Amino acid sequence: MTDQPETSEVQMNGAESLVRTLIGCGVDTCFSNPGTSEMHFVAALDHVPGMRSVLALFEGVATGAADGYFRMTRKPACTLLHLGPGLANGLANLHNAKKAGSGVVNIVGEHAASHVELDAPLTSDIAGIAGPVSHWVHSSGQAADVARDGARAVQAAKTHPGQIATLILPSDTAWTPGGPVARPLPEVAQTPIAPERIDDAVAALDGPDSLLLLGGAALSAENLEMAGRIAARTGCAVLSEWSNARVERGLGRVPVCKVPYPIDMALETLARYRRIVLIGARAPIGFFAYPGKPAVLTHPDARIVALADTGADLGAALAMLCDGVGALCMTAAVGTPGDISMPDGAITPESIAAVLALAIPENAIVVDESVTTGRAFFAATEGAAPHSWLNNCGGSIGFGLPVAVGAATACPDRKVLALIGDGSAMYTIQALWSMAREQQDVTIVIFSNRSYEILRGELTNVGVQNPGPRAVDMLSLNRPDLGWVSMAQGLGVEATRVEDCAALAHALRAGLSSQGPYLIEAVM
Amino acid sequence: MTDQPETSEVQMNGAESLVRTLIGCGVDTCFSNPGTSEMHFVAALDHVPGMRSVLALFEGVATGAADGYFRMTRKPACTLLHLGPGLANGLANLHNAKKAGSGVVNIVGEHAASHVELDAPLTSDIAGIAGPVSHWVHSSGQAADVARDGARAVQAAKTHPGQIATLILPSDTAWTPGGPVARPLPEVAQTPIAPERIDDAVAALDGPDSLLLLGGAALSAENLEMAGRIAARTGCAVLSEWSNARVERGLGRVPVCKVPYPIDMALETLARYRRIVLIGARAPIGFFAYPGKPAVLTHPDARIVALADTGADLGAALAMLCDGVGALCMTAAVGTPGDISMPDGAITPESIAAVLALAIPENAIVVDESVTTGRAFFAATEGAAPHSWLNNCGGSIGFGLPVAVGAATACPDRKVLALIGDGSAMYTIQALWSMAREQQDVTIVIFSNRSYEILRGELTNVGVQNPGPRAVDMLSLNRPDLGWVSMAQGLGVEATRVEDCAALAHALRAGLSSQGPYLIEAVM
Repeated sequence: MTDQPETSEVQMNGAESLVRTLIGCGVDTCFSNPGTSEMHFVAALDHVPGMRSVLALFEGVATGAADGYFRMTRKPACTLLHLGPGLANGLANLHNAKKAGSGVVNIVGEHAASHVELDAPLTSDIAGIAGPVSHWVHSSGQAADVARDGARAVQAAKTHPGQIATLILPSDTAWTPGGPVARPLPEVAQTPIAPERIDDAVAALDGPDSLLLLGGAALSAENLEMAGRIAARTGCAVLSEWSNARVERGLGRVPVCKVPYPIDMALETLARYRRIVLIGARAPIGFFAYPGKPAVLTHPDARIVALADTGADLGAALAMLCDGVGALCMTAAVGTPGDISMPDGAITPESIAAVLALAIPENAIVVDESVTTGRAFFAATEGAAPHSWLNNCGGSIGFGLPVAVGAATACPDRKVLALIGDGSAMYTIQALWSMAREQQDVTIVIFSNRSYEILRGELTNVGVQNPGPRAVDMLSLNRPDLGWVSMAQGLGVEATRVEDCAALAHALRAGLSSQGPYLIEAVM
Repeated sequence: MTDQPETSEVQMNGAESLVRTLIGCGVDTCFSNPGTSEMHFVAALDHVPGMRSVLALFEGVATGAADGYFRMTRKPACTLLHLGPGLANGLANLHNAKKAGSGVVNIVGEHAASHVELDAPLTSDIAGIAGPVSHWVHSSGQAADVARDGARAVQAAKTHPGQIATLILPSDTAWTPGGPVARPLPEVAQTPIAPERIDDAVAALDGPDSLLLLGGAALSAENLEMAGRIAARTGCAVLSEWSNARVERGLGRVPVCKVPYPIDMALETLARYRRIVLIGARAPIGFFAYPGKPAVLTHPDARIVALADTGADLGAALAMLCDGVGALCMTAAVGTPGDISMPDGAITPESIAAVLALAIPENAIVVDESVTTGRAFFAATEGAAPHSWLNNCGGSIGFGLPVAVGAATACPDRKVLALIGDGSAMYTIQALWSMAREQQDVTIVIFSNRSYEILRGELTNVGVQNPGPRAVDMLSLNRPDLGWVSMAQGLGVEATRVEDCAALAHALRAGLSSQGPYLIEAVM
């Protein structure tokens, strides 16, 4: 593929050639927190139409939003980040995006090459910072290369299932005449599926001691439908990983339970399976290691058939498997309305789950960072109206609010419901302002238990049965209590505080029936 | 140096051996945001006395606090961070701490070695993330090594002027029996000062076209006193770098002006000097590169004598230079009360400067992240009551509030005055909660200009004279306006909003005369 210079383009600078290339490659949304070294990129955004810019007040919001955007659109957005420290602030949510298989194109400004040598205050090893969270890192050498480098970055970000591509843009390559615009590069092929693995998988799935374990794109509605047929034919169980980038679920869809997070429950759940077929999932391991407990969660005698990893065409893998077991004509069991009545009284993990099951609107996007509070939510909402469910796949908290920004940017016609622990919400609280600015239709429930509750359990897991005051204090978010309504209002978001189930249900109706962001502090 | 095992210690686990070693090495303060992999360290903090723990709700608060703590005590604190993503969240303020020459010991939890191989969700290349901001990185191999590794980390952090040491603590090395406690390692020697450089410097400083440029520890009160004598003897000018970790200044101290930030002003200021002696400073370069402007700010013919870098004994360098020029008996010019009257009317950068000059209490610590608003503050406060002034040396905004937490932790008997731009404050707003929890005596002034004002200037600098609405929108913090009083109250901090100088002065008196944190939103 060659790029023919066009007369009108030869005078554009590198930044403009990059913006035009990104747009031409289908990247039309930029989550940004720019600085001086990105001013030429900002100037190009100003006069080149076609790129929507969403401003974040902290970079972790921008990178998390790009993750949420990809999950809902299957196409990468770009981020605009200021030098190494700006990238660093976005790193934790890039870690989460990487583990979720989301594609993101990071544009990171850098000093001019001659200035890097001088070691100015903001100089840092940007490529070094990017490396641990990126599949692809490149620094443009000259303005004439920038457009092609941008096309390469998009190609990398679109590599299945999605990858983190970081393009470092020295300011001299941004301001020097560059161009021409580069055309999109061809898509990288998906991982092939070995035919003999299909035969292995067909042989493995037989009866209730066999398991089809799903992850990634295998959790779309139509792929789950095929998994349901396979289960109906073979009698195998179907589970998903604990954390999933996106599951399509609810009434009329094939339900799928998750491998539990707590290590003892996970071991118990998986102990019964002797043959496990993986499609888009990895062999189950513990989230953490614990003294005296196994890290590999499956039975020692379990035989594992890794049929297709997340880079493969998981729909094709399921179709071949469905055909192989003779399930094409089967009918999958689907979710039915749950027998759930509106709870009253105190707000507890169980009562919230029931309220949510009744409240989730049709076609909603649920962003779940409810941590300890939310462990019962998933099962309870199996029969709720059809919806998408997004988990934190990298375990770095502070993921939920930014991902909600990205999901709402991607799907302005869908309701977004963000379920966030209070500890988690504080890492990237700045996301509320972006929701207010963009008037995004997001209802946020903050589970205010005033504690890193998960860590109290983990302290017990590591053998501390009676923690003293210093340890308890390091896991407590009281002293002072966080005032979620005040914080939200300060960030431009309407908010209310509820202390019982009836008030929670009422507030959820109010939030979900209004336009714009709405925050509910659920006091536990 | 050998460590003799003591009978009472042989059963302690690695985490406890590390806590006891850190305390024994003089590290008695921990700014923490722990997670599961750090639970054994938390448990050790719980039952080993001697380590003060300050909880942060975001890791950038913890790392910035460690920076502020070091600047005021000259000894490292430790941070406690959760795996790679927790470290990543603290990276930007570690960048700032590194550029300021602050010593910090990061304790970063890691999965057990056997678990890292399994690539669990939270697995990442922690050493890779740490590298760009650390002088020293090490991952403990076994529990028996942890104590010695901790002593090595402290030794590295104390290397002059101060370094970033990152110790990665795999959870199995934390929970396995370890010990014994390691003794402190000897201090690393300071950089020697070459005697011939003293002669060069003596020859260079002669008349108003010569400059003594200071940075780092050269800006202590007694070192500035020597610089003042040298200036009185030789007629040289004395300047400091634009950003300084800590300057001791005010009434009765030798005043020092800074090389300006705006590139044109910096070039103009430095154009007159032909001979420049550096003590703790680096040869002046632009903060950023700009098209068509030089990056090296000194006159092309200027001769630069690098007498002592920040790793040297800067007091000794100044004493030798003072002796060399025959200035030991000279009297330095010192700051005198300014002829400043209380302004009235609107809040402007100039009127704030006057209000501050009258308001700064004796022995206050001023943390300056006022960015554009504050460029006149430094000169105007030269004759204020004696105080310490702390700048952002790495240019990554979000530095000020966390550094104020650390300074207040270090100096509970001193008033802390944090001057913060609204854009900057939003990066690490979580710091307010730590101030409230610790009831720190910090008065915060937020300059609410609802803009990344500095970037509007930079957009002009790169040649965009009439930015369009898309560019302006990406530099604007309105839509919606940030409600600082609400946010502060939500984080447990008393707050008020002022719109004119009289109200600002009144609020400053209220904040500085009360105990505990107090936030003032100064509307511009």
